[in-house]
Order: sequence, then structure tokens, then C-alpha cells
Amino acid sequence: LYLKFHYTIMNAELHVIGQQSPDDLDGVRALVASGNLDPAQIVAFLNKTEGNGCVNDFARGYCSHVIHQYLDEVIGAEASSDVLSIMSGGCEGVISPHMNVFSSYPDEGAKKTGGLILGTGRTRDFTPAEIGRLPMVEETAKVVRELMRELELPKEEVHFVQIKCPLISSADVIAARASGEKLVTEDTLKSMGWSRGASSLGVALALGEANPSTVEAAILSDLEVFSSVASSSSGIELKGCEVLVMGNSPKSSSSLRIGHAVMKDAIDREAVLRACAESQGRTEGFEVDRVVNVFAKSEVNPSGLVRGARHTMLQDSDINGTRMSRAVVGAIVSSVLGRTQVYVSGGAEHQGPPGGGPVCAISRID
Amino acid sequence: LYLKFHYTIMNAELHVIGQQSPDDLDGVRALVASGNLDPAQIVAFLNKTEGNGCVNDFARGYCSHVIHQYLDEVIGAEASSDVLSIMSGGCEGVISPHMNVFSSYPDEGAKKTGGLILGTGRTRDFTPAEIGRLPMVEETAKVVRELMRELELPKEEVHFVQIKCPLISSADVIAARASGEKLVTEDTLKSMGWSRGASSLGVALALGEANPSTVEAAILSDLEVFSSVASSSSGIELKGCEVLVMGNSPKSSSSLRIGHAVMKDAIDREAVLRACAESQGRTEGFEVDRVVNVFAKSEVNPSGLVRGARHTMLQDSDINGTRMSRAVVGAIVSSVLGRTQVYVSGGAEHQGPPGGGPVCAISRID
Amino acid sequence: LYLKFHYTIMNAELHVIGQQSPDDLDGVRALVASGNLDPAQIVAFLNKTEGNGCVNDFARGYCSHVIHQYLDEVIGAEASSDVLSIMSGGCEGVISPHMNVFSSYPDEGAKKTGGLILGTGRTRDFTPAEIGRLPMVEETAKVVRELMRELELPKEEVHFVQIKCPLISSADVIAARASGEKLVTEDTLKSMGWSRGASSLGVALALGEANPSTVEAAILSDLEVFSSVASSSSGIELKGCEVLVMGNSPKSSSSLRIGHAVMKDAIDREAVLRACAESQGRTEGFEVDRVVNVFAKSEVNPSGLVRGARHTMLQDSDINGTRMSRAVVGAIVSSVLGRTQVYVSGGAEHQGPPGGGPVCAISRID
Amino acid sequence: LYLKFHYTIMNAELHVIGQQSPDDLDGVRALVASGNLDPAQIVAFLNKTEGNGCVNDFARGYCSHVIHQYLDEVIGAEASSDVLSIMSGGCEGVISPHMNVFSSYPDEGAKKTGGLILGTGRTRDFTPAEIGRLPMVEETAKVVRELMRELELPKEEVHFVQIKCPLISSADVIAARASGEKLVTEDTLKSMGWSRGASSLGVALALGEANPSTVEAAILSDLEVFSSVASSSSGIELKGCEVLVMGNSPKSSSSLRIGHAVMKDAIDREAVLRACAESQGRTEGFEVDRVVNVFAKSEVNPSGLVRGARHTMLQDSDINGTRMSRAVVGAIVSSVLGRTQVYVSGGAEHQGPPGGGPVCAISRID
Repeated sequence: LYLKFHYTIMNAELHVIGQQSPDDLDGVRALVASGNLDPAQIVAFLNKTEGNGCVNDFARGYCSHVIHQYLDEVIGAEASSDVLSIMSGGCEGVISPHMNVFSSYPDEGAKKTGGLILGTGRTRDFTPAEIGRLPMVEETAKVVRELMRELELPKEEVHFVQIKCPLISSADVIAARASGEKLVTEDTLKSMGWSRGASSLGVALALGEANPSTVEAAILSDLEVFSSVASSSSGIELKGCEVLVMGNSPKSSSSLRIGHAVMKDAIDREAVLRACAESQGRTEGFEVDRVVNVFAKSEVNPSGLVRGARHTMLQDSDINGTRMSRAVVGAIVSSVLGRTQVYVSGGAEHQGPPGGGPVCAISRID
Repeated sequence: LYLKFHYTIMNAELHVIGQQSPDDLDGVRALVASGNLDPAQIVAFLNKTEGNGCVNDFARGYCSHVIHQYLDEVIGAEASSDVLSIMSGGCEGVISPHMNVFSSYPDEGAKKTGGLILGTGRTRDFTPAEIGRLPMVEETAKVVRELMRELELPKEEVHFVQIKCPLISSADVIAARASGEKLVTEDTLKSMGWSRGASSLGVALALGEANPSTVEAAILSDLEVFSSVASSSSGIELKGCEVLVMGNSPKSSSSLRIGHAVMKDAIDREAVLRACAESQGRTEGFEVDRVVNVFAKSEVNPSGLVRGARHTMLQDSDINGTRMSRAVVGAIVSSVLGRTQVYVSGGAEHQGPPGGGPVCAISRID
Repeated sequence: LYLKFHYTIMNAELHVIGQQSPDDLDGVRALVASGNLDPAQIVAFLNKTEGNGCVNDFARGYCSHVIHQYLDEVIGAEASSDVLSIMSGGCEGVISPHMNVFSSYPDEGAKKTGGLILGTGRTRDFTPAEIGRLPMVEETAKVVRELMRELELPKEEVHFVQIKCPLISSADVIAARASGEKLVTEDTLKSMGWSRGASSLGVALALGEANPSTVEAAILSDLEVFSSVASSSSGIELKGCEVLVMGNSPKSSSSLRIGHAVMKDAIDREAVLRACAESQGRTEGFEVDRVVNVFAKSEVNPSGLVRGARHTMLQDSDINGTRMSRAVVGAIVSSVLGRTQVYVSGGAEHQGPPGGGPVCAISRID
Repeated sequence: LYLKFHYTIMNAELHVIGQQSPDDLDGVRALVASGNLDPAQIVAFLNKTEGNGCVNDFARGYCSHVIHQYLDEVIGAEASSDVLSIMSGGCEGVISPHMNVFSSYPDEGAKKTGGLILGTGRTRDFTPAEIGRLPMVEETAKVVRELMRELELPKEEVHFVQIKCPLISSADVIAARASGEKLVTEDTLKSMGWSRGASSLGVALALGEANPSTVEAAILSDLEVFSSVASSSSGIELKGCEVLVMGNSPKSSSSLRIGHAVMKDAIDREAVLRACAESQGRTEGFEVDRVVNVFAKSEVNPSGLVRGARHTMLQDSDINGTRMSRAVVGAIVSSVLGRTQVYVSGGAEHQGPPGGGPVCAISRID
């Protein structure tokens, strides 16, 4: 169990940096060169990379590779390995490829703001047979609980839990067949959903949103069991789960604040407005220029309907529905912010209600 | 030149009818059976059919085929051939497949409302070599002008001109090569853009938005020359252009009213709001339940940017950008109306500014 | 149970007719006009239509629709409904869209040739919950057995059993959820595989290739249980299974003869050569000009390997592997025949060994 | 102008190494560890990477990145930069992702075999406006001519010229618009074809297959002007052309020999057989186990026909035709060799006749 706590954050920063391609670090280098970003203080990358966002999307791995190659050089391999690099593939529609770089600085007695607090952790690696099953749920819950305990963050102040989780590869399928082991699915694309679902139920378990005795049976089965703050992305480039917990805390001296809401479906613009307002400490209305970014999950409505009318995403055999759902939620969020470097990650199994998903906003409060 | 004028409309109706598949006429049959739709009074079908909306999308043709097969039966082949069947392919994201059935009824001295007025026409068939070139521009302009003249509709009261235009097929390309004739493009997918562009410039020409002496050079070259009300869809199922002119007129006794605006880009929600307001005779605010439907064009921003940030639609070799742009604009319009049977047609060359497009709303005013 | 027997065939014909689009019947009309095809004697259409060949492929339905609309006109609705229209979607790579029109003529004492004999039948419609399960296996087996009995065709003379089977649509999924009924899968694309698999095991059951007591457990589970002559295509346009049994019989006076082999994988060219040879009554070598057409099944190798090396078709999230497998087998068959109007249908669950599939050739023997 | 000559080759090796993913170097590391490959002697990588092989395929760049990162470590950055890394994207159908690693060793007076000889070079970087135009043709021709001169290789002994060429990116298009510069195309996908075409005409020019005075006008216009040995792949990861010339020479002491032929279309299996035979010094017949690998180009037949029948690759708006053409040629070559780690690169503009392409085989001769 790897854990890293960032509860003493001063001037915690979230930099939103555009990318020209998955290996483009020019923006990061420029920020570092200008003294506005100290690479030694980077906590996590939360990136939207271009690619199909599905199984054979190597842009995620490529981006993650060059990030760690760079960090290895500038802060050393050990410190580099502490930095989470969560790559969410797929920049459909207007979504613009970008990095969200979270960094934290020692606060040395700075004024407390009640703002953003971060904690990061990693589960152990999972075997392919564990992916999408109870061990994944429980190990993820364990990391989330530990992070909350160390951050002294009560449930109601947890606003977003971002997870990067593994998938079952073709090689895993072949190996499992050879050994006679039964995987939760042999469909590599579907395995992404199982992995996201089990990880998110881990968050739900940690936050008391799911029942320990029934959570196993709920995986991809009872979608009404969900977390309101979990956001999971699946990728081929890791074997365990990486976890980033975000909340507001009296211990924080950050100038950022987080708020969240739950989109009931892909066109629930009102939920995006509520998350933005909450991030600015309001129940209604907000200043768009103070919003640093919005992070949302999207999902093809499994009922086949949106607002009672049929959608075609479940039976389009040319384009994976996940891609289309990102395009939709990306458009909604972009129209709220008036800009397109927004973070929308697809596949919201047990992340918000079926067809919907959690959304959080981070605003500057000073 | 075929023209049909519907300026004496009483209780002109626009029925929005969901489809379970491209050959599903159950909704139309039910409306006819209930006495709420007289098939003899149908003017035009403006449908969103599921399919890729690109070259090899046969759902459009299939839907059009079953519509005319049905109309042939119930109103006879000649009357059937007068009915426009404009199929816009592609129900990406939340867009729900549906028909917009425009019908008109004799008004017999009913009270004038200053509401919706319709005219339909067809150009002659074009040769493949004419597609995307001046003859297409001029023939389309001729039909639009004739319809405006007969409807006594001044330019400022023309709110939407919907066109269905042909494309260049593989067979056309082969034939042209054999004969040595030079087509505007040999790329069948690109030919859809040339055809939409030339047809739309025809509307611009008729409405004084384009200059007769420079319009030829402008085709797919100077995209700043555009019509604010043209909406063109291209399909393999016809050889000429079908034209539907919509406006408001003192001669109308319809209970419907039309308004329009121009989206400056794919996330310009404000333009959708303005079109809705205008359709209800206001400059701001509207009653969403009075809006019968919204009709919008979408386009991949050819600059490669939306609101200054890079989008990936121009270099996604797996998914045609037109599909993604429909998903985006469909999401924006759906979030305004709170429903998803909305009409968004892709490819807005010379229809609104580059990356944007016209949008119109039709509301009930009684 | 609908059954039709064609055991007294004289000059049984197989016409291979290219199509310019799914609604193109020009070739059929020309053959009829020339007196070379009597529409009243048509037994079945076995078509390769262009489209994705997956769930939202309406080209199959469109083609089938216009065929029956035409037959309704020329031979009446009742006779038309007896004609099987089996549409296999997807003309990937070099495969050229075409129709295989099987017709049979009364032989009135013609010389027996020991050639081709045909029988067609239909199962009852299945409920969505029956698709991919035992009732589908058993009903299909019943029709195959009945046809063999009536045709007096022993197992070893059955060379190809073509089936068109239904799929589970989005609407079916929604209805099943509402009613609490559990379907074999809620993934519409996967349902095509379940349906093909269960139908093909029906053939295997009828031919003694599968064991009645274990067949239910084998469905999409034990892929080593398979039929060597089954060929199943799934489509959204029907609810039951259509069955076409083909064999050689001493009762036949046809000038055509059929042979078959089993491809062990997608590049097993030798099996295609053997099927061609057998159709000409040889064990090796054949005259390519006598081969009227070849009919083959293709499948993505579920092991993830072809000849021991990794393929990427299982993890390509942009293109369904079925499409690629058709391109591959289509290329192999086309290179054998030196022409591209070849019939290759995708998805060979329980049709030949995993990754392979049955192939048959029909040759002219006089 | 960078040039490197490998005319004194002893035990020149071609290693064919499978990859599990684009960043998988395990095979290379194992070969190096076993002493069978000296990284300091590597001349070029010619890889088939998985991805769409079109514009937004980052697997090529990722693979190339990790190769050079590795080489930087083991042989130093300068020597690493001399190694060509030509990535051909797209492993459609049965094509298995793999590397072809060409290495050369000092021969120190070894026996001459008349076998394989290699030379590599690079042109200067091109501006976006030069891509697809005369400067690209001429610069490429210059490098080819220089390599032939230094290798003392006459035209008739040049059997394959592999080129990796750049493409026009979205960023290039935006920059060109800003500066008013006119590019050969603004369609990034089409730019790949222009780049491959111009580079290949450079080879044709160097080999006397094209006329200096008419070559400019021929680019993507007169496809009957072509090289019989050029093979060009386009990618986003470089700005100039990388060139690998292969031939047989009396100066060579390699145990490998190369032969080539021209496929007249995508299913021209006979040409593959001829190339294999020639690589073993025969006109007919060959030992399949001696063939180390086959390298072929594939192309969608621009006539819309293959062997006189319509194909659908030009009007499939869901799948780029290049992908399908690779699947077809990959199937043909794999069926000849009985294995699937074969090199087939898509887009054969001016590489062989329209719809066809060059193919070469490398065999072991001792």
C-alpha cells in the first residue's frame, strides 16, 4: 500500500496545460522554466489524451511514459514514481487534449482557507482474475479509507475520488485460458467497465454508499448502487489502482476549493452549474473565470433512453458508445465554461446513477 | 422546375414522431388512423435517421423508400412524388431518431396569424460534373427565388431554407474517368461537402448574402461567404436539390411561428436560446413547452480550434468529424429543450460562419 | 413450422448478380426480362450486402425489403413469403456486393445427375429470451431434420446449411428489463454471436455432431463442439430462423454440384481448394471457371493468435473484429477464384473450429 | 544530407521479432542479451505497429520513442540517431505486430555471396508547403541516387526502397492559414497520400522510371507513373524522409538475398510467389522456410473495381480504405508464408500500378 498525503498544502496549484500531441511536454517545461511549477511538488497528472479511449489506445501509455521519463530526469526515479499519472483517453467532439497538473507546496504556517486537500495512494497490483471482482472493491476501499483517515477528511467533505484502474488484456485472456482460470469477462473492452465498476464500488464502500454484504453481487448488476464522487478511468498501462482523493478541509491553506454534484444524465447541465456554484461556496450562481476546471464522468444510458426517447449509442457497431457519451458531456461542460479544455472521462459504472455521473468543479477562492 | 406553395396554411402542423428503425412508420400510421394527420396534406418529411450520415448510409434511402411506398398507397404515386423526404443521416450522441412531418391545410378564410408559411421545390437533376459547381449554385438560387416570389416572402422573413442535395458516387467517379470528365472531387465523402456548399451558396445568392460575380470562386474556398438560414444535407438517394423554404408571413393562418439565429460555433448555446425566443416573438426568454422543435446545422471547426483551443476532429481517422460535430450540437440543443428528438444536421459549409451554423426554432403561438 | 422441398430440381440455377447498392434489383429484373430467371421458381436469395454487418446495419433489411416488394408484385405476396432472403452484411476488403439467387425448376423426368438438392424452412419466431438458448438450438435442429428427412438426404450428403437468425435489439433489452426477464446478453452486438452459435449447434445436433445432453452447456462455452457445414448470419430483420439445406442427391437432375471443407483458420487456403475440388467430384485440382461461387464463414480467432502469432482483432476498439475477419477470408477466397463476388459471412461460432469455419463450393458439372 | 553505407556486410541479419505492444522491446533485449544481436550494428527498424495507421496513430511514435530511448542508453545518442526507425502503422486482419531489425557486421574478408546490401539516408526536413510537391520528389531522388552511387548498385539490382515520409498535421494547416501559405492539401489524412506519392516518385526519378520534366505534373494525378520498388509510409513523427535502399551486390557477403515483383492488384498472389522465388535465385518455386520475411505495399484500387467487380472501400465512411487494403494484402501474403508476422504497408501511390504495389522477399541463401 502506497500512500501520500498532501494535507498541508499552501498555494496548491492546478495547472491546466494544452497538449499538441500525447508526447508534448512543452507546456510543462515552460511552466517549470518560468518558476511557476516546481516539478518536485507535483502530486498528480489528470490528463485528457487523444485516442479512442478504449482498449487499443496507446496515447495514454505514451503520454504517461514521457511524463515519467521527464520526471525521472528532473526529480529522480523514486520521486517520479510517487507522482500519479492518470490518463483518461478520448477527446471526442470539442474536448481539447490537456493536462491537469496538481501540485502542492509546504504551507509553513500559512493562513488556513478551508480549501482543497489532496491525498494519493495505490493499491497492490491485481491478478487478471481479481479485476472486476470483490478483491478489487475491497482493496480500493482500503486505500480510500486510509487516505481519508490520514487527511482527517470526513465523508461529507470528500468531493471527488479519481481512480485509474487496470483492464484485462488479450494476453491476460490467453494466459487465463491456458491456466483454466475464469476471468470476469474475456472481452477486453468490457473488462474496462468491470474494472471501473469494481473500483468505484470500492469508493462507495469506503464512503458508506454501498453495503459490504451486498456489494459483490452489485458489481455491474445493480447499477442503482453507486458512489456520488467516484470517477474511474481504465487503462492498459497499469496493474493496480491509483487513487486521488480530493476534498475541502480546515487544515488546508490552498487557494482552491472543490464542489461537486451528480449529473442525472448526459445532458444534465444543471448539475454542472451546481458543482461550479458549490466550488465557490454558493448554492446558486458562480463566476466562470474563477473555475479552474470541471471534471465529469459520462456514460451511455444503459436503458437505451435519454429523457424518455431512444438513443442509438448502444447499437452503433461502428463507434463505441463511450466515445459518444464523452462528446455529449464534453459539449455540455464546455458550453457552461465557454472553453473546451475540460475533463470528461467515459464509462461511469457505479459512478453516479445509470446514464449519469459525478461532476466536480475546482475554483479559485482568493 | 417543380414548385409547390403552401402560403394559405391553416393549422399547419409539425408532428415530431420517434422511429424505432429507419423503416418504422408506426407513428405516422397511428397519427393518420387517429385523424390527426391527413396524408394528403403532408408537405415534407425532415427526418433524423440513424446511420453514419456519410456516403454509405443506406438508412436515409431506406426510410425515404418506405415513406414513399406508404404514400403511394394512401394518396397515389403522383401526390406522393410531391412530398419532400429530406433525410439527414446520423443520430450521434443523444440525438433520437425521429421524423418532422410538415403538413398544411386549406385555411378557408381563417384568421391570419402572421405565422409559419412553407414552400417546396426541386431543381432539375444535376450531372455529376455540375455537383459542387456554379450550375448547382444558380439552379438552387432560382428555385429559392421563385418560392420567395410566389410566397411573397421578403428576405428578412425567410428563417430557414432546408435543402437536400445529391453527392458524387463511386459509380459517378468511374463513369467520369471513363469519359474524361473532370469532377470537382473524386472523393465521395468530400463530394457531400461540395454539394452542401454549392447548394447553400445558392440560398445565399437568392437572399443577397453572396455576390453573383464572386460566388463561383467562393465555393469551399471563402467560407466567410455564407447564408444565415441555409441548411443542406447531402444524400445518395437523389440527383437534384429538394428545397423547403420557411418563413413568417401576414398571409399565414398557422398556429406555428419560426425564428432563427446563427451559432458562431458548436457550443454556442446562446444562439439556440435566441432562436427559441424569436420563434415566440421575443428577444429574450421563451416557454420551452411551446417549442415544437429546433433545427440546427453543425460543423467541425475548420480552423482546428474551438474557442481558441485545439480540437481533434480534423485528425481523427477513425470517426468522421461530421459525426462528432452532430453529437456536440445535438447535446447543446437537447440540453436547452430538455429532450432529445432534435434535428441537427452535419456539414455546414457556407451555412453560417466556419465552425458554426444556422439554427431555427418553431414554436406554437396560440 | 414452414418447410419447402426442392428435391426435384431440373436445371437448378445459381445466378451470381452484382449490386450497385442494397436496393439495386436491375440485375434481377434483366435476368427475368431475358427469360433466364423465372421469379416464380426462386427458392432463396443469399446476398452479400454492403454495411457494417453488425447491429445497426440497415442495408440488409433494405435489400430484403425491396426484394420482397418486387416479388410481391411479380409472383404475389404468398409465393413471395416462401422465398428466403438471407442477407449477410459486410463487404469488407475486396468482397463485392452481390446476390446469389437460387432457383429450381420441375424436372419432368430429366436425367438424374446426382447433383445439387435444396430444401428451405423456417422455425417459429423466438422470444428475445429464447435467442442464444436451448429452444433456439432445438427448433433449428427440428427444421434441419425435417428437411433432411423429406429430401431423403443422409448426413454425409449434407454439404452446407445456411441459416439466417435473429438478434436481440435495444428494444428487446428495454422490454426485458421492464418485465424482469433475463436475456442471454444485453449487448446487442454480442447477441448476434449467441444467436449464430445456438442456431449452428442446432445444425450440429441434427447432424449428430453435437450431443443432445451437453449441447445446452456448450453454447458459446465449448467452441470445440461445432458443425462442419453450418453457416449462420444474424440480422435485425427477422424473429425466427430461416434455413437452407444444400446437398448432393441421386434424386437431383441439377447441373450443379456442391462440395465442402472446413477452414482451420482464416488463412487456410487449402480448405478452399479442397471444397472446390470436391464440388467437381475430385480430391485435388479443379477448373476455376466451373466454380459458380464459394460460400465461407469467417471468424476472429478467439485465442488471440493465428498460426501462433498475436493478432489485434480482439482489442481493436475502432473496428469490430468480425469485419476484419471477413476481409481476410474474402481475400483468400477471391485469390483462389480470381474474382471478388464471393460470399463470406462473419461470425462462425460453432461453425467449424474456433477461428476457422466451413466453406462450400458450387460447381457446374455438365 | 545524411547517408550511411552498409556495403561490406557479413552475416547481415534480419531479425523478425513479435511485439506485445508498441513499447515492447523484450524481444530485442533478449536477442541482445543472448549475443545474437549487437545493438551497435543495427541499421534500421522496419516495424508493423498496431494502430489505425492513419493520422492520429500514436503507436508509431511511441514505438519509435522507446526504441531510440533504448538505443540512446546502450549505444549512445549519436549512434542511436543514425538508426532508421520506420514504423508502418496498422496491423489489420491477421497481420501480427512485429519488428524487422536489419543489422550489418564488418565482413573482414569473408566470402562474397552476391547477396543483400543496404544503404540508409535521410533528406533534409521539409516545410509543410514542400510536402507532396516537387522539392520532396527531388530531394528524395537525390538521396536514393547518392546511396546507389556509393553502394555501386545499378538500377536493375535495386529491389526495394523503403521510405518513411512526413505528413501535414493540423498544426501545420493552422500555421499555413495564418501565414497565407498554400499547402498541397489541408486534409491531414490526404496529406499522407501526397507525401507517399511524392517520395515514391523520387525513387522513380532516381531509377529512371519517371521523367524529370513531367514528374511534377504526375503527382497524385498520373498514377500510371510509378516505381516498381518504392515503398513509402507516412507518419507524424518526422519532418524529412528516411530512406532504406536494398539490393543484391557482388560486394556483399551476406547470407540473405532479396527479390521483388509487382502486385497488379490486392489479390495478386502470383506476384508474391514470384518475389519469393526470385529471392532464392529462381524463376519459379521456393522453400518457404528460407523466406525470412515479405514486404509489400497495399492500396485501395482507385478505379472502384477489383478484377472488374465493384469494391466498397472508397465509400466506406466508417473505415478508411487503407486499413482494409492492408487486411487484404496481409491475408494474401500470410497465406503464402503460412505465418502472419508479415510487413504490409498501406497507401501505394506511385508505388506499383494503381490498386497494386511492389512486393519484395528476403530469403536466406546459405
